Amino acid sequence: MNIVLLSGGSGKRLWPLSNDTRSKQFIKIFKTGEDEYESMVQRVYRQILSVDEQAEVTIATSKSQVSAIHNQLGEHVGISVEPCRRDTFPAIALASAYLHDVRGVREEDAVVVCPVDPYVEKDYFEALQQLGSRALMSEANLVLMGIEPTYPSAKYGYIIPEDTNVVSRVSVFKEKPTEEAAKDYIAQGALWNGGVFAFRLGYVLQRAHELIAFTGYQDLFDKYDTLTKISFDYAVVEHETQIEVMRFAGMWKDMGTWNTLTEAMASSSIGKAILNERCENVHVVNELNVPVLCMGIKDAVVAASPEGILVSDKNQSSYIKPFVDKIDQQIMFAEKSWGSFQVIDIEEGSMTIKVTLNPGHGMNYHSHELRDEVWTVIDGQGKTIVDGEVRQVGPGDVIRMPAGVAHTILAKTRLHVIEVQVGTEISVHDKKKLEMPCI
Amino acid sequence: MNIVLLSGGSGKRLWPLSNDTRSKQFIKIFKTGEDEYESMVQRVYRQILSVDEQAEVTIATSKSQVSAIHNQLGEHVGISVEPCRRDTFPAIALASAYLHDVRGVREEDAVVVCPVDPYVEKDYFEALQQLGSRALMSEANLVLMGIEPTYPSAKYGYIIPEDTNVVSRVSVFKEKPTEEAAKDYIAQGALWNGGVFAFRLGYVLQRAHELIAFTGYQDLFDKYDTLTKISFDYAVVEHETQIEVMRFAGMWKDMGTWNTLTEAMASSSIGKAILNERCENVHVVNELNVPVLCMGIKDAVVAASPEGILVSDKNQSSYIKPFVDKIDQQIMFAEKSWGSFQVIDIEEGSMTIKVTLNPGHGMNYHSHELRDEVWTVIDGQGKTIVDGEVRQVGPGDVIRMPAGVAHTILAKTRLHVIEVQVGTEISVHDKKKLEMPCI
Repeated sequence: MNIVLLSGGSGKRLWPLSNDTRSKQFIKIFKTGEDEYESMVQRVYRQILSVDEQAEVTIATSKSQVSAIHNQLGEHVGISVEPCRRDTFPAIALASAYLHDVRGVREEDAVVVCPVDPYVEKDYFEALQQLGSRALMSEANLVLMGIEPTYPSAKYGYIIPEDTNVVSRVSVFKEKPTEEAAKDYIAQGALWNGGVFAFRLGYVLQRAHELIAFTGYQDLFDKYDTLTKISFDYAVVEHETQIEVMRFAGMWKDMGTWNTLTEAMASSSIGKAILNERCENVHVVNELNVPVLCMGIKDAVVAASPEGILVSDKNQSSYIKPFVDKIDQQIMFAEKSWGSFQVIDIEEGSMTIKVTLNPGHGMNYHSHELRDEVWTVIDGQGKTIVDGEVRQVGPGDVIRMPAGVAHTILAKTRLHVIEVQVGTEISVHDKKKLEMPCI
Repeated sequence: MNIVLLSGGSGKRLWPLSNDTRSKQFIKIFKTGEDEYESMVQRVYRQILSVDEQAEVTIATSKSQVSAIHNQLGEHVGISVEPCRRDTFPAIALASAYLHDVRGVREEDAVVVCPVDPYVEKDYFEALQQLGSRALMSEANLVLMGIEPTYPSAKYGYIIPEDTNVVSRVSVFKEKPTEEAAKDYIAQGALWNGGVFAFRLGYVLQRAHELIAFTGYQDLFDKYDTLTKISFDYAVVEHETQIEVMRFAGMWKDMGTWNTLTEAMASSSIGKAILNERCENVHVVNELNVPVLCMGIKDAVVAASPEGILVSDKNQSSYIKPFVDKIDQQIMFAEKSWGSFQVIDIEEGSMTIKVTLNPGHGMNYHSHELRDEVWTVIDGQGKTIVDGEVRQVGPGDVIRMPAGVAHTILAKTRLHVIEVQVGTEISVHDKKKLEMPCI
């Protein structure tokens, strides 16, 4: 199975656990063992491989997520990197060109496109396999998955099939309706549109070449920023008459808000939390090192991370985005390809961060113009290169890097370092990448 | 006026803003200007001096609060330090001996004893002056303040006076009654016992000598740990027949719980907080550097500090103590005589703290057996002494102190330092105080 996972969004709807660099799909929230959790993207990737261990998984995403994806899924997953955001049609066109030109998928092969963040079980991915098989043999150009609705939701688009067979021609699409209209549609046999569809690769490549002038993957990648933003629905689906829908009646949840996310939590809290016996329907997700104590609150979600603290009525939790948009703040936590960092103190003229490097990984060789930096290794073994000079380092070692001096650190074992930045102007933009010296 | 402020309690009822080293009376929560706040002890001290600028204020407290008191009130306030906690009778006896032997107060002078944390206005302290004057001229040995009750509370003790005059003999005391009984008492003219009373110094010294064998202040201080725990009520008030009560009808609030504390807040939030329009009767006190976002919650208090996060229904907030008692955690924040510190990161084998030194102040000269320390100055000017060697330091300077090496830092201007501790066993007990070298 060739599967393209669309990984979008800056994920402000799950603030403070998601932020501009960590979208909701990377939050480790699903319990896999004692004190072990996986993220949505890890869960979906694991589920796909459990159904089809030969699956070719490609994640279509922006540059900002590449580090987090490698960090969570390893180096082997395919990534189609969008140089900038241009909505789903250019993203799917680019991923299709990537599959064809880079991964060697043939035009007659089936490709399944799916969001990266459905909360589902194994049967969903078995259905994706069937969707792919159907795309291979069907006369239709697109085969959609239609999810059997469980209630007349106004949050989803609806697909109205021509008949009630498992696979049917699509009669009409309906965008997010009112609850009343949704009831009518469901009475007519309508299905939810979960954004999942399959096609023969050649079909989408042909549509792409009709709408965009490009020679191949690299050319499309290079001119990506010149493309018009347009969704796959508007660019392709609306103009296509040969569309089928395949019913799916298994469990499916959209994890878009805190309210729906907490429904998938195995226990009422993750992280340090105490809830007294007067709390009702309360969920706590605490990424901080200090406890959250809840006393007598009801129908609420409490989420705490280095970015901030959310205390929300569950129904109100779907309205947080405009409030979060107004928060203008330094990013306090980020996953990188080499590990992660967390800001632990900010003062005028200084910033202190905790850096975690994964074994075998290292930062780029770089320097800063306007700040001095000091590393104190607190755990692990590794080496630093400062102004070309290599040094083995371990717990208690201190490394000074005045402004202008090139430096990097490389982890032998997992390495924890406290980095103190001191300077008049501290900014992520004050960073000059340099070539690693030959040593 | 000679006034003794009783400053007690570890203050777990206002967790996470109060902890074992910072009692509730030191939390800066009362607005005095744009982004300026004062603590209960600062507010009371300021109010006393505004009524009587000649007032001799003595704070009776434990050793653990001395730093915070000097930090918040300066060096001039009198402090009677209890070497350990022995309840109110030994504390008042010790403070009385301190006033007599150290501060030169005469036996015939009046002393007023008052808790350090009532939320009151100026008229309350004017009433304290009258209480002191009454103690000088009255035949009674104790003159109590009786607060006109505003509702039949089961939280307070009641004083039932013989008549309804402003000053009256006390007929009987009633401990915390049921609400029903409280209604009866109030119908009989009962008053709340706010723990405030005045006496001639000689009277309490005499009682103290009757119950404890001691020669003077220093002797009492030295044998303090051998004394029996007993309250002033049991030791003195219950055996005294010559007691008067003076009515006080002004504003009086007991700031014992989050619920009552928030009633005294000038606005719905302190610190970084966003409340959407669907929040009702919500108060936020946020001492962290990141925002708290509240969506659609009601009748709740949210408090966040480096120690933890509380989200409580207001009525439930008076029951937090047993839950907080169970939290076993490193103290994350403390005020010291020289400034303050905040733990910003804890890992196995390391701890990172931000140290703030007030201008002109410095730490003790000391060393650690089991940990190395590294200071990075992030702001301000000062000097370090490491192994006898003096060095002027400023922003960006790094100072290494391997285990066993004596060190201190002294602030010229306000100094901010990041201290990284690395060692196998990091404990507050691993500290050897040394004599400052002559330099």
